[in-house]
Amino acid sequence: VTATAKRVRPRGATVERAVLAATIEAMVAAGSARVSVEDIADRADVNKTTIYRRWPTLDGLIMAAVTAHADTSIPISDTGQLTSDLNALCRLVRDNLTSPTGRALLVATRPGDNRGLDEMRERFWTARFTAAAKIIERAVERGECPPMTAPELFIEQLVAPIHFRLVELGRPVDNGYITSLVEQLVRAVLPG
Amino acid sequence: VTATAKRVRPRGATVERAVLAATIEAMVAAGSARVSVEDIADRADVNKTTIYRRWPTLDGLIMAAVTAHADTSIPISDTGQLTSDLNALCRLVRDNLTSPTGRALLVATRPGDNRGLDEMRERFWTARFTAAAKIIERAVERGECPPMTAPELFIEQLVAPIHFRLVELGRPVDNGYITSLVEQLVRAVLPG
Repeated sequence: VTATAKRVRPRGATVERAVLAATIEAMVAAGSARVSVEDIADRADVNKTTIYRRWPTLDGLIMAAVTAHADTSIPISDTGQLTSDLNALCRLVRDNLTSPTGRALLVATRPGDNRGLDEMRERFWTARFTAAAKIIERAVERGECPPMTAPELFIEQLVAPIHFRLVELGRPVDNGYITSLVEQLVRAVLPG
Repeated sequence: VTATAKRVRPRGATVERAVLAATIEAMVAAGSARVSVEDIADRADVNKTTIYRRWPTLDGLIMAAVTAHADTSIPISDTGQLTSDLNALCRLVRDNLTSPTGRALLVATRPGDNRGLDEMRERFWTARFTAAAKIIERAVERGECPPMTAPELFIEQLVAPIHFRLVELGRPVDNGYITSLVEQLVRAVLPG
């Protein structure tokens, strides 16, 4: 390979994956406020027009990349048992928030950075909580717990202490902590 | 008052209050990473040596100021009833986190800003949770709830969803949300 060798540019689904990965890389390197389509195009080795054709706005691209990253790093488990599904979820949330990429993405997309990501952020979290709420719905179907009016809220309140510990308190979240968190919240929703 | 009028410099407890208030002002204006003793001395209209005599390190001064601010803006209520004390606590936490000053202080002291505040932050939160845990201890004494092995953890998990909503999700926290949060967590610790 020489400097003048013609580089083969990726196409189709490969382009999509390359652009989403490049967006994550750029956000980790610079934060969402300073990321640019130029930088992403450079990192993915595609033309800017290729990006704009698929993602007309930068905000849309950022949220597509963050969503793809979350779906991959925090898949929703289906072990057939409520507490083990919830434990698995919490451990993945913990692992993601303690990884440099996961933390950087959280920081880059949180409210107050004036990027105008508010609507996209709301859609992102709604989708995440809805996906994770499947854990509850399956447990209800199995008769493991009573129907819940807002399973998404249960998930939100389950993962909140993990975020709070890691992001605000700077305290560790070990598996024992996660187990007691899950037990406590499940106890709160089961009939007394 | 003319430009040449001799200004009266504050003394004793007045100096202490003025320096702590100036520290909060400086942090809101610049963040903890860029705050300097010079800036604080200017704002409080005292000599730098006056500050160093009371607070040998800038980190110590920052944490003293943040602690004084938290103690003032989130006093621990004592209404004689568990859920109303917890509701009052949560509402003050919400009000503080939605105020420009409270939010700026949280951002300025959170982990990962490389200010080396880790030890002080841990002491700050331990003190806050211990103070708020008095609410639980008084409820146990009144026989309102069974003794808890870790009332501080209860408080941590109670306020976590409020932080998560406001800081990460960018969703509002209304009084109805707080009431259901308190009820749910209290239900989890009461005997079934």
